[in-house]
Amino acid sequence: MPTLKLSQIGELTLLKQIRKKFKKYPPNILVGIGDDAALIKHTNENLLVTTDMMVEGVHFNMDFITPFQLGFKLVSVNVSDIYAMGGKPKFLLLNIAMRRNMDKKTIDSFFDGVQEAMKLYSLFLVGGDLSASHKDMTLSATLIGYAKKYLKRSGAKQGDRIYVTGNLGDSSCGLELLKRIKRPIPIELSKERRAKSKDLRINSNDTVLYATRSKLPAKGLKWNDVELLLRRHLMPVAKDSKKFVRSATSMLDISDGLLIDLSRICDESRVGTRIYINNIPISSELKRVASCLGMSPVKLALSGGEDYEMLFTAPSSKKVNAIYIGDITESERVIVYPSGRKRAFSAEGYQHFGFHR
Amino acid sequence: MPTLKLSQIGELTLLKQIRKKFKKYPPNILVGIGDDAALIKHTNENLLVTTDMMVEGVHFNMDFITPFQLGFKLVSVNVSDIYAMGGKPKFLLLNIAMRRNMDKKTIDSFFDGVQEAMKLYSLFLVGGDLSASHKDMTLSATLIGYAKKYLKRSGAKQGDRIYVTGNLGDSSCGLELLKRIKRPIPIELSKERRAKSKDLRINSNDTVLYATRSKLPAKGLKWNDVELLLRRHLMPVAKDSKKFVRSATSMLDISDGLLIDLSRICDESRVGTRIYINNIPISSELKRVASCLGMSPVKLALSGGEDYEMLFTAPSSKKVNAIYIGDITESERVIVYPSGRKRAFSAEGYQHFGFHR
Repeated sequence: MPTLKLSQIGELTLLKQIRKKFKKYPPNILVGIGDDAALIKHTNENLLVTTDMMVEGVHFNMDFITPFQLGFKLVSVNVSDIYAMGGKPKFLLLNIAMRRNMDKKTIDSFFDGVQEAMKLYSLFLVGGDLSASHKDMTLSATLIGYAKKYLKRSGAKQGDRIYVTGNLGDSSCGLELLKRIKRPIPIELSKERRAKSKDLRINSNDTVLYATRSKLPAKGLKWNDVELLLRRHLMPVAKDSKKFVRSATSMLDISDGLLIDLSRICDESRVGTRIYINNIPISSELKRVASCLGMSPVKLALSGGEDYEMLFTAPSSKKVNAIYIGDITESERVIVYPSGRKRAFSAEGYQHFGFHR
Repeated sequence: MPTLKLSQIGELTLLKQIRKKFKKYPPNILVGIGDDAALIKHTNENLLVTTDMMVEGVHFNMDFITPFQLGFKLVSVNVSDIYAMGGKPKFLLLNIAMRRNMDKKTIDSFFDGVQEAMKLYSLFLVGGDLSASHKDMTLSATLIGYAKKYLKRSGAKQGDRIYVTGNLGDSSCGLELLKRIKRPIPIELSKERRAKSKDLRINSNDTVLYATRSKLPAKGLKWNDVELLLRRHLMPVAKDSKKFVRSATSMLDISDGLLIDLSRICDESRVGTRIYINNIPISSELKRVASCLGMSPVKLALSGGEDYEMLFTAPSSKKVNAIYIGDITESERVIVYPSGRKRAFSAEGYQHFGFHR
């Protein structure tokens, strides 16, 4: 049976469906989708706004990610930026350009992923645009939120402690796995439905992954380990910074890798930093999988990127329920090894470019 | 001399230059470009937000428009959406994806155009993203504004009069000219600099246009006429709705053509409309040029699109300083000719698609 394409459905029909899917608004949205602009009732909190663009073949590869995951991730990365300012995300706008021969199932699945993430973060879609593209899909999201106290990158003080909210390196190891698996893995489906997926082979005790045509090492990989790392890369969940906002002096979310992003805090705050390598949180899943792939888990944790964990500083006097990884110093930028040896570092990792990072 | 490419400048250098160009903020912008999100001090006005995407080869063609004009137009079309809600535009965010081999001059010129429009409308750039693209350039803008009283599409009442703020059809005739000229015309330059432009030939009395390789009719076209129509298409100026906000009952900006956009007001307000064909404002420039091209100026005015004039309704009791083109009726949708003959119409013109139009 031939699948229905965007060009056959008609863009206006698609648009009506999208509007219907997302048009359940709370009373503070005075005008939502369908007019020249959205209108939101004023509040007494400061406004936060962030925007991000994802280009096919540059930021994502449809051979690696399902449309559902892509929709979910697009929302999460923007939510992470609002959390990184100490705010609450609220209103989403989406600009999507896609090929006319894209099939209806793919489009629906993308918007299902968007909706799943919107539910998770209690967001509302208030506007956007759909457009044809010639070749690559381009996604642009804008997210509006609110903050009373807010956290910039420039507030770190000498003597502050440096914290992260969770394990680092999982996401980039997930990407390394995908580069070898070379196909989308529908982790968003139930085990039963996943087992029916043509390209994925998990053996009967549900622990070892076989994927057809994959370049994965045949032995030693546990499916549960693989799944966790893939999930961190494909469907990252933004970390709400709410409980750290009072204590923190500076904050950002780790998108380009710990060393790059910590360098940003140092640059903006005009301070130095000392990281204790033994304090860097590394999951046992990462350790096992990296070992199978012959990679260094520490290297992935320091400069892998796309962790979407919060990285923040707080005075040492404050009790903070997060992972203490280092201290803010006057000017040195060093990694401290268990032997006491120090190694200077500069920003490494993926050099993306953007107004906001 | 070889021109400098984006890939040679480096994206971070470019980013720094852009930040520097735009980073002069008023005190209500607490955090601008350069952190995870922009932060804007709260006000007691309702928030307006609109977003638009322009894809190369779909919404624009670099053979027809200069980078400066493109930057200017991107800002104007978003401002027009905020005005169409009765609001004041304030804060801009831009997501730009462009080829790595794009030269520095083109990029600078694009941002000069953005800046020129931002000055015109008193806007500030508070965020965005730069990204590589494989082929086509994709532009996405989000604009935030404020409104006390606001104007939806759904407020038109039977008996209201219908108004527009200026001449219709100029822009689409400008596009028709460009399809024949087949190259960008740098109308943003001074006459002297324009005269040096390789592809443009204007004869010594500055009235007749010759463009090399163009398919323009050789005789009868006046440069001043051509320039006005090109300007309406390439560098549209959004019409501030401020003086109509009190009187108006519904409003939108004409982007897809009068008949489509008026149909939207009728659909949303559940009313009919009667347009008096003789009242449609048509410039003498459009009349002369359309005649040379063998086109109907009325047809261009009714369904050409990209006019960016405000279309609004107001009670007949109100004194309104705009062009009265018709009346809101119960349910008929007709064009009335001088003879008294009525012709029913349905939405015609370019069928774009978007959440916001």
